[in-house]
Parts: sequence; C-alpha cells; structure tokens
Amino acid sequence: MKTVYPHEIRPLLVDIFQAAGTPSDIAQCVADSLVDASLKGVDSHGIMRVTKYVNEILSGYMKPAARPVIVKETPSIAILQGGAGFGIYALGQAMQIAIRKAKANGTAAVGVTEVTHTGRLGQFVEKAVEDNVIAFVMGGGAYRIPGWVTPYGGAKRLMAPNPWAIGLPGGSFGPVVVDISTSATAEGKLQVYRAKHEQLPPGWILDKNGKPSTNVEDFYNGGFILPFGGHKGYGLSVVAEMLCDALLGMPLPKDMNWFIFAIDIAVFRAVQEFQQAAEAFLSEVKASPPAEGFQEVMIPGEVERHSAQNREITGIPIPDETLQKIQETARQVGIDVKL
Amino acid sequence: MKTVYPHEIRPLLVDIFQAAGTPSDIAQCVADSLVDASLKGVDSHGIMRVTKYVNEILSGYMKPAARPVIVKETPSIAILQGGAGFGIYALGQAMQIAIRKAKANGTAAVGVTEVTHTGRLGQFVEKAVEDNVIAFVMGGGAYRIPGWVTPYGGAKRLMAPNPWAIGLPGGSFGPVVVDISTSATAEGKLQVYRAKHEQLPPGWILDKNGKPSTNVEDFYNGGFILPFGGHKGYGLSVVAEMLCDALLGMPLPKDMNWFIFAIDIAVFRAVQEFQQAAEAFLSEVKASPPAEGFQEVMIPGEVERHSAQNREITGIPIPDETLQKIQETARQVGIDVKL
Repeated sequence: MKTVYPHEIRPLLVDIFQAAGTPSDIAQCVADSLVDASLKGVDSHGIMRVTKYVNEILSGYMKPAARPVIVKETPSIAILQGGAGFGIYALGQAMQIAIRKAKANGTAAVGVTEVTHTGRLGQFVEKAVEDNVIAFVMGGGAYRIPGWVTPYGGAKRLMAPNPWAIGLPGGSFGPVVVDISTSATAEGKLQVYRAKHEQLPPGWILDKNGKPSTNVEDFYNGGFILPFGGHKGYGLSVVAEMLCDALLGMPLPKDMNWFIFAIDIAVFRAVQEFQQAAEAFLSEVKASPPAEGFQEVMIPGEVERHSAQNREITGIPIPDETLQKIQETARQVGIDVKL
Repeated sequence: MKTVYPHEIRPLLVDIFQAAGTPSDIAQCVADSLVDASLKGVDSHGIMRVTKYVNEILSGYMKPAARPVIVKETPSIAILQGGAGFGIYALGQAMQIAIRKAKANGTAAVGVTEVTHTGRLGQFVEKAVEDNVIAFVMGGGAYRIPGWVTPYGGAKRLMAPNPWAIGLPGGSFGPVVVDISTSATAEGKLQVYRAKHEQLPPGWILDKNGKPSTNVEDFYNGGFILPFGGHKGYGLSVVAEMLCDALLGMPLPKDMNWFIFAIDIAVFRAVQEFQQAAEAFLSEVKASPPAEGFQEVMIPGEVERHSAQNREITGIPIPDETLQKIQETARQVGIDVKL
C-alpha cells in the first residue's frame, strides 16, 4: 500500500487521458472526478478506473473526444446523446443543463444516453446543490447485458445495481447527498469476501437454485445478487430501469443510461428559509444518541466529506497492485512513469 | 370476520362522512379511496380509517369541508394549502394539477401542506399513469411529533415512516406502482406481532439502548423502528423529510406534507414506444424463475391488483372488531346501521 496526493496523481491522469486521445478539458474533468472520488473514500469509482477507461478507449468502445449532443429539447427537458464518450463528462454537461433549466423553469428533467461509466454519482447532485437546486439522478437500462441482480422473489440475473443519487442543501451541515445502489451489495464487495474466504452477511445473495446463501462461492457458481431492502429496493431498481430504458431508449451495450430531475428551491421558498429549516431538522438528526456499534449519526454524504478532509492531508492510500496497473496503463499510451 | 362488498360499504361511508359535515363530492372521493385500498388488500389504509377520520372531525382537528387553496403557482409548480381538510381529497387535487402542469410543461412539481391523512399513496400515482404521466410522491415533515423511526446509526425516535410512491405505465402489464415506506416496518405490524407473542424478524427494531432486538416488547419499552435497508432507506427518508418540511414548511401537528414530481412521457418519447419498451423489460422480469419460497415474481403493484380482482368477487374481509368500530362511528354521527 502506497499513498498518493492529489497534486501528484491528477496531472498524471490528465496526461494519460490526453495521450489516449482525450481533449484537454474532458481529460481534466475526468481526472478531477476520479481524484475527488478517491478523496471521498469511494475507491471503486476513483483513480483505479483510469485502467478501465483507457482499455475501453484502446478497444474502440469509448470515443474519448465525443461530446454529448442535444437531440431533443424543450424549456424543461432535454435528451443528450453521448456518442460513446466519457460518461463523467456527459453526465456533468447534462447536470449543467438540468440546473439551468430548473433555474429558468422551476423544474426540469434531462436524459443522457450512449455514454460510458459515469464515476461517483454523488458528484453530479453536489453541483446542483451548489446552485441551490435539488437534484435526483438515476441510472438503469442494462437488463439486456444482463446484470447480476435478480428481481425480488426471483432467481434470474437481470438488472444492474441501478444507482440513485439525490442532493439537497443542508445549511451549515453542508450538502445532503444520498448516493446508493439498489442492490444489496456490489459485485466488487463479493470479490473482497471471496479473497478473504469470509462468510457474507445474510440478505446479499441467492445460490443458483434461488436459495438464500452466505457462501460467496454460491454467487460465482451461478447465483444472484439480491436487491437491497427486499421488494422496496427492487421497486426503486425497476423505476430506474424504466426511466432510463423505456423512456430514453437502449444504452450502450456495456453501460447504462441516466435520468436527472431537478427542482429550483427558490421557486418554492426563499433559499435562506430552506437552509434554516434544513438545519433545524439536521440538528435533531445529529443529536441522536448513537446505536450500538456506532460512534455518531451521520447525515447522508457526511462520511464521504470526512474522508476527503482526512485524505487531503494524509493522501490517498492505493494498493500496490492498483499502482502497477496504473503504470501499465500509462505505458500503454506511451507514458513512462514510476509511482 | 365478516365480508362486505363495495356496493354495501361505499354508500355507508359516504353517508357517515356527509353526516359529519363533509360535502358530497369530498365524501365520495374519500369513500372511494378507502374502499379501493381495502380492495387492493391495504386494509390499514382502507375502510377501517373512517373511525379515525370521523374522530378527527369531531375533535375539531380536521375540517371536513376544507378545500385546498393554491398559495403559490408558476407554469411548472404549485403549492396547495389544505386548510386541515381531508388529505385524500387534497392530494388528489394536487395530483390533478401536477398532471395538468406536466402535460403543458413537460415536468412539474406540486407541494401540499396542512392536510390530514392521505390514505393509500399508490392511488395518486395511478391517476398520473392513466394520463401517461410518470409521478413520484413523497411524504414527510413529521419529525417534530416525533415519529418512531430512528436515523441510521442512532437511537432516537425522530422520523415517521416517510413513504414514497412512484408510478409508470407498464404496457399490457398495467401500471407499475411502487408504494413503500422508508421504515423497516409499520408500527401496526408490531402490534400484530405483539398480539401473537411472536418474535420479530431481525432488522426491524432497536431496544431503548440502541441494541438490535427481535422482542417486540423492546420497542414498546422505549425502543426504535429502524429505517429499511440501513443507510439507504434512511437516506430516502431524509430526502422526503427535507422536501416536505424544509421546502414546503411545517405540516399539521399530527400529519405530514407531500411533494409530487411529475414527468410527461410524450415529451420524451412516443407513448406507444415507451409502452413497448416497458413490456419488453417487464416480460423479462415476469419470466424469472421463482426464488425459494416464492410462486412467481411480481411487478410492483401487481399484488395489489390481484387482491382487488379477488376481493371484487369474494368481498372484503373485515374483523368483527373493526365492523363494530365502524358501527359506533356511524352512531356518533347519528346513523344507525347493522353491519
């Protein structure tokens, strides 16, 4: 395990993306997103992703210079076609449009199609919150791949972990950012349990016969990841799937589409009044005595903010294997670097 | 246990509400809603509620003749003040406005304040789906009461089960209706376990010290209901709370406010294309082999629709005690009836 600092790794990522054919502004946008995710502790969506992204460029799947094009637009809605470009860049552009339309119109909805991986979802609603806009983002539409998640009550690999992110301002508590998948676990977490030969918590997977299991091998032998929270998480997953596929059309073969809706706070209430009311409620939340096994109650998004504050100082810990892969990725695009 | 049919019970409910001072159209709207909820198997939000509603009228808490007033309006948003009237009527009116605005504008958001209980939430998004509008409804803002639900990681009675409902058309499969609370269980369900002296499933409650428990008495001795799905359900509850309180202002002292978001399908895609794409996905869902303990995979909302189909024929089963209470309620407003 090594430690890297944002000022060391960010320029390298920009160089790698540019060397792979990415225009400077998009390379910087994507590098910022990956470093920010790593700072926030969401390592799975952080700097390790450079390897996947460059592989997708080199294989021809991702078009690094593609910029999203608006294919449908009214004062309150837009559909952006990403042209197989960076999802992080395209969803960021879509959120800017959603914010602008919400500010002008009160409410807005924007769809994004034909994009690759979009990174940490919370980053997009954080942008909206900076402008005092409440935003929802959902991803879905990958059922044709299919994904590892079974419908509730079933035993079928069908849906992806269709994520939701929602952001609202929280006054002096900072942005409230809900950033969740609708599956009980990520496949990446199953890999961690597998490597450690540990039992899974109950409620994460079914075996190939549709029987609940805590043996991670049962998943890899044809089993299924469950939706989180039974029929409830399943319902939210179905909603994301239908908004992103039935409403927006088919995504890229290995990815999802995205649906944003945005609400301008000021059209309902003076922003300062909202902030004060939010603080009053969040103060009550923070004043909760902790439950057994907890130090304190966290407001959604607070864990990530704490991580970023720490990692700005201590640096981002990165496993040696990940660093090696980043070096290899750099070499693939002609950059020789020692990390 | 007796059985009643809609054509028997609906006119009685209308008579009771009218005798308690409710205008005919509102009485019919509320009676229809309660009978529909009972038909759909959601007995807790069905005809048994007549007793609570009439008590609230007789105590002066509910104003049965109040009609919601629009206190803020733009082409895409509205805020309705309910004047302490029937929540079922007010939220129904609000949804009509949201549908109309979404049809005109593409997207819309409508808030509802100062209303009493709103019945089964799914009924409102079903109305939107009839008009090919996708709708979200969330309830919250009751943290000052406070509710029984603790924030995740905490041990504090704070939030109500802040519900969410979302509806989308499902082509030949009928409306897809997600109608969920953000708590792991309803307090009413705990009463059922208590009466039967049964152990609770894990993950529903904490005892008064914030320790997980499956003993229902631990809840009644100062314990807490958990959010569903850990930090994920907690996040969704916080979102509903902030949309309905920080954005809309304080609710009535014993109730919640409501927030609707609506999207016109046709502004994104031809409705027929949406329906076909929805069917293609839902066919894959329905084709899932059942998991252990299940007969078949259900599309969200399907269980309720099946219940209604059955109960239209077999009638609505009602416990004797509930029937007696309805008779007493009728008598309180001067109606003598034998059920």
